[in-house]
Amino acid sequence: MHALTANRMSVDAWDQFSWHKERPMSQNLANATKVALFSMLVVTVWVLPAGADDPLPSWNDGPSKTAIVDFVSRVTEETSPDFVPVAERIAVFDNDGTLWCEQPLYVQAAFVVDRVKTLTPQHPEWRELEPFKSLLKGDVEGVVAQGEKGIAALMMATHSGISVDEFNTIVSDWIATARHPKTGKPYTAMVYQPMLEVLAHLRNKGFKTYIVTGGGVDFVRPWAEQAYGIPPEQVIGSRGKLKFELQDGSPVLMKLAEVDLIDDGPGKPVGIGQAIGRRPLMAFGNSDGDIQMLQWTTLPRGAADHSPRFALIVHHTDAEREWAYDRNSHIGKLDKSLDEAAVRGWTVVDMKNEWKEVFPQ
Amino acid sequence: MHALTANRMSVDAWDQFSWHKERPMSQNLANATKVALFSMLVVTVWVLPAGADDPLPSWNDGPSKTAIVDFVSRVTEETSPDFVPVAERIAVFDNDGTLWCEQPLYVQAAFVVDRVKTLTPQHPEWRELEPFKSLLKGDVEGVVAQGEKGIAALMMATHSGISVDEFNTIVSDWIATARHPKTGKPYTAMVYQPMLEVLAHLRNKGFKTYIVTGGGVDFVRPWAEQAYGIPPEQVIGSRGKLKFELQDGSPVLMKLAEVDLIDDGPGKPVGIGQAIGRRPLMAFGNSDGDIQMLQWTTLPRGAADHSPRFALIVHHTDAEREWAYDRNSHIGKLDKSLDEAAVRGWTVVDMKNEWKEVFPQ
Repeated sequence: MHALTANRMSVDAWDQFSWHKERPMSQNLANATKVALFSMLVVTVWVLPAGADDPLPSWNDGPSKTAIVDFVSRVTEETSPDFVPVAERIAVFDNDGTLWCEQPLYVQAAFVVDRVKTLTPQHPEWRELEPFKSLLKGDVEGVVAQGEKGIAALMMATHSGISVDEFNTIVSDWIATARHPKTGKPYTAMVYQPMLEVLAHLRNKGFKTYIVTGGGVDFVRPWAEQAYGIPPEQVIGSRGKLKFELQDGSPVLMKLAEVDLIDDGPGKPVGIGQAIGRRPLMAFGNSDGDIQMLQWTTLPRGAADHSPRFALIVHHTDAEREWAYDRNSHIGKLDKSLDEAAVRGWTVVDMKNEWKEVFPQ
Repeated sequence: MHALTANRMSVDAWDQFSWHKERPMSQNLANATKVALFSMLVVTVWVLPAGADDPLPSWNDGPSKTAIVDFVSRVTEETSPDFVPVAERIAVFDNDGTLWCEQPLYVQAAFVVDRVKTLTPQHPEWRELEPFKSLLKGDVEGVVAQGEKGIAALMMATHSGISVDEFNTIVSDWIATARHPKTGKPYTAMVYQPMLEVLAHLRNKGFKTYIVTGGGVDFVRPWAEQAYGIPPEQVIGSRGKLKFELQDGSPVLMKLAEVDLIDDGPGKPVGIGQAIGRRPLMAFGNSDGDIQMLQWTTLPRGAADHSPRFALIVHHTDAEREWAYDRNSHIGKLDKSLDEAAVRGWTVVDMKNEWKEVFPQ
């Protein structure tokens, strides 16, 4: 779950902004490439099965692991009555809180803060203009007081008026150097090891794995292949409008300051419908922003489509190794989906008890 | 190229509507499945290479065949200095006039006419309401006189207010029974054999092949896998807005009467940017509606991206076996792109002289 709206972002979370140190934007592409290659290597090693036949070695034996492994066998073994052809094996994953850590604040929000700081020398007027003024002073309440309009202004200032290619480079440089405020690790090292194993297991079984994120599609695409093995064309996300232009004869796609899709809540099935054009077989989420995606995936039996469907919710129950939050959280609120999971038979992962590891070692 | 706007559709083309016979909408799914399986079989047989080593047996030896085969070798042979990793091998294809016949009128327009006739008993008011009244009378000038607003009304009446799943079924049934007005063949038999061979050759070499059509994405997806081997998630096209709804607890995606993307001209790079998120390596088109897609693909050398790029235009020069048209055509107008092709070094196929076969035998 992830939508950069003020009402979902707590004062506590915004407070964490101060944990970030000022970092000059590195333009050193060679360095970024080294980090990228290293990440790729690390991911490759991580996803190799530790046990000979266990596709999910970081999962304790328990109901969730059994549910995943059994469902995958059921739809991929040719003798199974529920066999599904490879072409229809689509699995969709929320990103924030499902594939990587979304606490104490969305990673994209940390990017926005850093980006505003980087851009302020070119926009001296921001020092006296809200919500920039409050953000630059670290005055969280001042930013929140500007409401959704303030958040929109921050998003537009940091996510538009440049080409998709330029933005891609900026994000790639940032993700290579930025660090999580609490652990000091790169954000791409704060992905969930058990979920990397699910992604790898599904791909081994012929699935196409997609990210369907409330975050910006252009924010996630630059690093998703290295972090998760998911190529840009399998990342669906929120987006602004794009415009094709010839600049001195060179074609560019410009990012406009206008929302095109909020890929959150009811926007997730819409994003899936636009990009994939068929109903996923499996869906993975962690919050109420994923509820419609999970509903869309698990069509009730009795309707036209009788094929087996699977939905899973990552329940953050581990305050020691990660964070514990659900019904009243400001980020990743998991309330209605927990009730819906009980009604619809969705698998709910008890992170504390079912995950041997949380992050890659 | 394909956009259902009045100014691009000639009176001559609309005249062809009368060639269509009234056909009851077949709800016989079993029958549709049989036709589908048969089409798949036929496509499979077609794309098998006729010659042992010739990936493009329906192409005469000539500059276009050489350009395609050489470029593909150049980017896929590991020892080549222009080698491109599999993940970046993206090829995009316009549909109407590039992969299948767009004369004497866009296939989707024929669908609209049939659909209006089918729906009229439920909408008796259409008999007195333009543009339906003129269309039902076969009065082409009357329809054209309604301008873009009239076309939009026809599109909305036939393409919205139902779910994506329902629309999919309607299109699948229609494509299984509809016939080309001149040849009497199914439309899916009027695909271009030489282009099927290009699609197969590229996929054999690790490319992902995409359709990027000005036509409706929901109109093309239901049959693109059978006709071209292109799955729904690799079809990009024009689309209306979608809305997620629970109907009696069942999730549906409804097609709204509001345009979301016109995937034509400058909209094609936008559609590619939204769905793929990286620049294609090869692009294939046939009209001015494809010019920006071909520009976007073949970034001028000297810019940031130095990798090799390929663009091709199908030039319809064969009045005997198909149609001959270019600079002043009402459908598939090829004017500026021909000039641009000369400047940018795009490959232009002389259909009459370079294609051994046009349609599958």
